[in-house]
Amino acid sequence: MQKITKLKNPIYIESFASAGGYEEIRGPLGHLFDITDKTDLFGVKTWERAESEMSRAALNIALKKGSLSNDMIDLIVAGDLQNQCESSYSALFTFGAPCIGLYGACSTATEGLIVLSAMLSSSENYTRGATVTSSHNSAAERQFRTPLEYGAQRYPTAQWTATAAGAFILGKTKTDISITSYMPGRVIDGYSSDASSMGAAMALAAFDSISRFFEEENPDEYDLILTGDLGAVGSEVLKSLLSKNTRHGKKLASLHRDCGLLLYDRDKQDVHAGASGCGCSAAVLASLILPMIKRKELSRIALLSTGALMSPSSISQGESILGVAPLIVIEGVN
Amino acid sequence: MQKITKLKNPIYIESFASAGGYEEIRGPLGHLFDITDKTDLFGVKTWERAESEMSRAALNIALKKGSLSNDMIDLIVAGDLQNQCESSYSALFTFGAPCIGLYGACSTATEGLIVLSAMLSSSENYTRGATVTSSHNSAAERQFRTPLEYGAQRYPTAQWTATAAGAFILGKTKTDISITSYMPGRVIDGYSSDASSMGAAMALAAFDSISRFFEEENPDEYDLILTGDLGAVGSEVLKSLLSKNTRHGKKLASLHRDCGLLLYDRDKQDVHAGASGCGCSAAVLASLILPMIKRKELSRIALLSTGALMSPSSISQGESILGVAPLIVIEGVN
Repeated sequence: MQKITKLKNPIYIESFASAGGYEEIRGPLGHLFDITDKTDLFGVKTWERAESEMSRAALNIALKKGSLSNDMIDLIVAGDLQNQCESSYSALFTFGAPCIGLYGACSTATEGLIVLSAMLSSSENYTRGATVTSSHNSAAERQFRTPLEYGAQRYPTAQWTATAAGAFILGKTKTDISITSYMPGRVIDGYSSDASSMGAAMALAAFDSISRFFEEENPDEYDLILTGDLGAVGSEVLKSLLSKNTRHGKKLASLHRDCGLLLYDRDKQDVHAGASGCGCSAAVLASLILPMIKRKELSRIALLSTGALMSPSSISQGESILGVAPLIVIEGVN
Repeated sequence: MQKITKLKNPIYIESFASAGGYEEIRGPLGHLFDITDKTDLFGVKTWERAESEMSRAALNIALKKGSLSNDMIDLIVAGDLQNQCESSYSALFTFGAPCIGLYGACSTATEGLIVLSAMLSSSENYTRGATVTSSHNSAAERQFRTPLEYGAQRYPTAQWTATAAGAFILGKTKTDISITSYMPGRVIDGYSSDASSMGAAMALAAFDSISRFFEEENPDEYDLILTGDLGAVGSEVLKSLLSKNTRHGKKLASLHRDCGLLLYDRDKQDVHAGASGCGCSAAVLASLILPMIKRKELSRIALLSTGALMSPSSISQGESILGVAPLIVIEGVN
């Protein structure tokens, strides 16, 4: 059931870029973002359009950083948290490349890297593709919970949806970072219908993927097991599950970090249990982690963006929150 | 920019199944469905859960028809119209296989076949995968327009979202139907913000994909160009565009049929401009078209499920409806 796919020919990360808003600028990674806007509006009128503009900007900057033009991209794979992936499709429209739209909730960054790697390696015609993922705090709050104007109080276990995007250009020409294997996640019941504590629900999916993966893989060969947005609560649940239930439990727990705890400074920022959202793991990967791999400070990591699969109607109908945690291996090239 | 991917080793369709509700039973394909429920509820309480149950049933039947069990499926690729793909993820949860969630609006059936084919051929570890797509009239009406209880009047150009699902099991072992090539669609502006006339908006995306594809391919080698859900209005727009703007225009227009016009009898059923929804092209493919290929009544077809990329918030904010039409080639094996 593990079914890790080792790519026969690795796919390389050619270029990448990150974007963030007000809360992200104030966080410890603020100075690392390629583009930021402290108004969160990115020059347009609505939060929904702003998310789309942010994705578009991230992809444009990734193209520019790689000295690439639109017509050098054969395929774009993208997704976001907005209903009907509206943000991604509106953003991609202007690039003119064929598109595949994904929905994996906050797991979309890893899902996008997996699907794009698979599609590039399945086709001799594809040279290069892009994957873009985003989330916007204000768009997500109004869609999933209540519009900001209502001033609803947030629970201590709630996380702060990041206003952030990450864009990645993948290709077949050797660079200093490669994607070598992947393993999509299973859909796991989070045994909770509490939309204010999604980290705990997703921790079970992360545990399922990490424990399956390291039945085959040796954790000593990894520098980092990076989850997407478990936050403070979910990270504790995951570490406890790993320590008690897996052969290499303590080692796995010691390798674990969570993007939801890296994006903000919880002592100084009012973000409760940490960051969440599709954009969280995408932006942390593009701003902090990939540059560390480039600088040889990390040599091989397992990234698992974590997705809480709930909709406003499933929550109001009392359904349990399902989780998913696809996994991808990214490593430095000598 | 065409970038048709010809699969080095074709992927085969091992098994498939279709499901439908009240309006689908009454249509000309009603007797061809594998499972139907005239209450549209499939034994559960809400329309949203009913869609999920219908998808689950379709996949279970496809497995049974292929004499396969859950643990013989390495990967499931799925999507639907519900916010956050809630229907698909809830349905897939019980199968225990790794999942990839897609969102391509009503283009999801073709998008799923493309992504699954690519992932199977990129991995030596994957033997077999499933793709499932669904839509539910009552769930879609309450999400995209107004709850049925409001009794809102529908425009003559509006289409009827099908309560239907299609499940497909794909693998690497030779069968009598194969997938030989694919081409994802570009996101094309439909130049309309009228959510009651989506066929016309999607026709431009279908035209873009068909004309690009047949710049390289010879239409004489195809028996059918099958679009997903353009309906009466969109089909006329597409035929007119093809006839006037492409080299093989008349031939292409003569090969064109639309699943949205095959699912219902518009003279007897009050479905206005025809069927729509993710489930429409999936169910027509599984109930009518694949059996025709099996019986050698069709030898090679190009399927383009058509997606209208709009959300309730993009419509209320006056945004234009974008369209996408991914294309896949399915053919009989001698």
